[in-house]
Order: sequence, then structure tokens, then C-alpha cells
Amino acid sequence: MALSYGAHPLMTRPPISTASAAVRSVDVLRRGESAATRDEVAVELPLEVRLNGYPFSVIMRTPGQDGDLALGFLFAEGVVRRRDDVVRIDVDEATGVTNVVFARGRDERVADALDQRRQVAMNASCGLCGRRSLETLALEAPPCRAEWSVSSAMVGALPNLLRSAQSAFAQTGGLHAAGLFDVDGRLEASAEDVGRHNAVDKLLGRMLDAGRLPLASSLLFVSGRSSFEIVQKAWMGGIPFVAAVSAPSSLAVDLAGEAGMTLLGFVRDGRFNIYAHPERVAAG
Amino acid sequence: MALSYGAHPLMTRPPISTASAAVRSVDVLRRGESAATRDEVAVELPLEVRLNGYPFSVIMRTPGQDGDLALGFLFAEGVVRRRDDVVRIDVDEATGVTNVVFARGRDERVADALDQRRQVAMNASCGLCGRRSLETLALEAPPCRAEWSVSSAMVGALPNLLRSAQSAFAQTGGLHAAGLFDVDGRLEASAEDVGRHNAVDKLLGRMLDAGRLPLASSLLFVSGRSSFEIVQKAWMGGIPFVAAVSAPSSLAVDLAGEAGMTLLGFVRDGRFNIYAHPERVAAG
Repeated sequence: MALSYGAHPLMTRPPISTASAAVRSVDVLRRGESAATRDEVAVELPLEVRLNGYPFSVIMRTPGQDGDLALGFLFAEGVVRRRDDVVRIDVDEATGVTNVVFARGRDERVADALDQRRQVAMNASCGLCGRRSLETLALEAPPCRAEWSVSSAMVGALPNLLRSAQSAFAQTGGLHAAGLFDVDGRLEASAEDVGRHNAVDKLLGRMLDAGRLPLASSLLFVSGRSSFEIVQKAWMGGIPFVAAVSAPSSLAVDLAGEAGMTLLGFVRDGRFNIYAHPERVAAG
Repeated sequence: MALSYGAHPLMTRPPISTASAAVRSVDVLRRGESAATRDEVAVELPLEVRLNGYPFSVIMRTPGQDGDLALGFLFAEGVVRRRDDVVRIDVDEATGVTNVVFARGRDERVADALDQRRQVAMNASCGLCGRRSLETLALEAPPCRAEWSVSSAMVGALPNLLRSAQSAFAQTGGLHAAGLFDVDGRLEASAEDVGRHNAVDKLLGRMLDAGRLPLASSLLFVSGRSSFEIVQKAWMGGIPFVAAVSAPSSLAVDLAGEAGMTLLGFVRDGRFNIYAHPERVAAG
């Protein structure tokens, strides 16, 4: 069934809970038991993203917030730049096809994006799912200049704050979670997915749809590690502060330094490490 | 510096330890401390894979075993099918460029691969880093028919067996690890990377180079979760048994079922769950 949503907001979110589509029950045989029992696993299924009907990419994702995911992915790729680039997002939940309908006058943008994708494949300058070169990425967004800071106590509280917004399944670690917080530690939005980067795209898409970009007064907190991809997406969204439960990669540290972005890792059990731009973390 | 290795084996591995190239020291400011200390992070850098000099893909990876990674990636993509498709692998460690030189008479294979990559981008039938459609993948490899089984005790011992082969840094969880084991639990090979799928590609590449494919008598054990991608790569390598420290995704479970592959998750602390084809796990 194809669902088509009107222009403002771009999508109305289906009333079904994300958690139900994100989890599936399977037969499991536990060590030492002779009969299978039922247990839940995270759903992973392909989502095809089309631009004005033309296939653009396929993302392995956990169903839920598919329109947000498509929009956020296209924003992080630099294809969608402003909310009014897009007039409608058609989500076909049965087939996993999401068609992003560009505004009139944006046909050239769509043609460029499809063409660039061909060029990327032909030059293979970067195979990050059809992304441009690292150098290009680093030049696209201005450095973060936000001058606010948060307390160490607030940072230490992030894991519990995100947990309280997560589904029961995500709390077990079955899904990655990402949350956007304001500088007072209030949760602005959260998302879940088998892929951390998808969870971040879902947040970016939702915020773009709400007219909230750039997110110059927000913190992004992600479960798992922070890689190049997470920091790049945050930078595209104008987020000056990224924190993660686990370790950053070397490229995440380098890119955050260049972006003027505060980067924290190992944010758990009341501790954390700062890897870049510590000036946004006050003592106490 | 470009290193070029002779024909048999395809590569000789550099004497430098993988761990040293895989880890970098960065400044870290810990909560509650006023001065930065040094700590290690996993290195993440792009590797460009070329076919006979033509750019094919860029992989975000942890340096080390780059030739293995390129070969295993191309094998899992279906571009390299047998060891003698390739005569040489040139690894330029300074620029992160690896050129896979195909054997004479395989020029058509290279042209097809480059052309298919263009087609994939144009049709976007699958954006999994330029991979073909899910349906195609599932048809490429025959189902696993291995009839051996292993004891529950051996499976329970896998985490410690892999740990003893890991670098100190990987043991802290800083890098993902993957290990191949024989049916008696002896380690055949191990690899480390920021990406689980890269660690598996490194193993596949090394085993292809050693003339050991298909791996019909091997178990693959990976840290982290098992996704579609891990199961697909294992299937391409003919591995009938995949075990992971964390949860599988729904698509990993489905694909393993279809592949005739035994799939285990949550292999830790002496416990495990079987998600597909339990017939290869004996009691005790």
C-alpha cells in the first residue's frame, strides 16, 4: 500500500509504533535446551530511495521512520539542502520503496544527483555507498562556531536520558539508538536502527522536515562507536557536539577537530573522554 | 612507497605488525582531569581498490592486510572468483591504493565488473556499496551441505580462543575481530578492523590466496552482531557455520536459513543461541 503525505509537514508519521516494525520474533534454540523458544531480533530490510521516481540508492535499515531516513540520508549526501527542495515523500511500506518528490524547479538538482552517482561509480573516487571524496565532504559545511557549553554532570546523564526514550528492545542493545538533546539535556528526538548511521539520518530527516536545521544548539548522542560517517552526518546537520557510548575512530577524531566539533567517547557509568574541542564541556 | 608482490603467493605480508598500523595515539581529556593524556584509537582510513588500474571502490578500513582485504572484498562481490583470476596485488601503503592485477584473459571480467558498477549506480537496484540485488546474491552460491557438527563445549570456548589471537587493543573492544576455526576449535586465521565486514573480507582474501576456498570445514566467529552482510560474505566463502558475540538481524537469520548455514548469536559467558540449522551443534 502506497501512502502519500501532503506538503506541510512533508510526512505524517504512521500511527504504528516503530518498535513493532523494528522487531521480529524468531525460533531460538538455547544452549542446553532441547526445544526452541521464541525470541526477538532486530528487523533488517532494504529500503529503496527514489528521486522523482528514479532509483537512487538502497539502504539496509530497520523499518520505521522511513520517510525521515530517506530525507536525512539525502540531506547528508548533499542532495536535499533545504526543506523546500522536497514537496512530498511517498512511503510504500509493503515494498520498502520511498519516493522523494522534489519541488518544481529542482529537477536539475535531481538530474545532478543521479548523474553524480553515475560519475562516482565510474570514477570510484569514493565507494562509501556512492558518496563523494573525503576532501569534498570536508569543504561542504562551515566549521561549527557554537559558543555554548554544558556541564560534565549533564553529559554523564546522557545515557540514562537516552535509555528512557528507547524501546524495550533497544535497551537490550538489540538496536542502535541516537538522540538529539538541547543544551539543558532535554531530549529533542530519538531514533533506532540496526545501523547507527541510519539512526542519525532518521534524526536529521525529522529535524529537516520540522525546519530545525542547522542544529547549532543540539548535542547528538549515539550508542556504539563514532566513525567518520557519524561525524560527517552531524557536521552536515550543523551539530557542534557529538557524544558516543563507545570509542571514536581516528578519522572521527580528525574530522571533528577540523569541523570545530566537540567529540566525546566512552560516555558511560558517569565517565567520558573528550577527543576534540573540549571548550564546550564545563567542569562539574 | 608502492609494494609489489610476486605471483605465488599473491602477496607476501609486510613484516610490520598489524596492531601498530591499526592503532593511533591521540590526546584525550578525561572527565574530572584538567590535562590531556594520550590514549589509543582505532585507525580508520579509506582504501581505494583498483582493477587493472581502474578505480572500483573505496572502503573505509583499518590499515593492515590491505591486499587480503581487497582480494576478499572482490571475492565477496563476485568479481574475483578463483585465485588464478589475479596475478598480482600492488599495495601502496602511503596512499591507501591497492591495485588488483587480473590475469591475462580476465580483461572481460574486469570490464564487466566496472560496467556492472555503473549499471548498479544507474539502476540503483542495490546501494550496498555497489552490490547487486538481494535476489542475485542469494542465487550465486549453492547451499551449505557440510554434515559435520561441533560440541557445545567447543562453541562456548570460541570467545577465549579468538581473544588469545587478538591484539591487546582489539581485546579492549577497540577493533572488531573475526576468526576462522576448524571443527576441532583450532584457529586457522584471524583479522581485525573497525568494520566487522572488513575483518571477514580480510579472512576471505587470505584464504583465497592460500587456495583454501570454499571453507566447508570452517567456522567463522565474529565480535559484535551478525548482519545480512556478514552472512552473505560467509556464504560466498562456503562457510557453513557462523557464530557472533552479539545478536543477528532478521535478514541474517533468513539468509542463513536459506543458505543451509548454522547461525549462532550471543556466544559469550559460556552461553549461546542457535538461530538457524542447529544440526551442526551436538549436545555437551
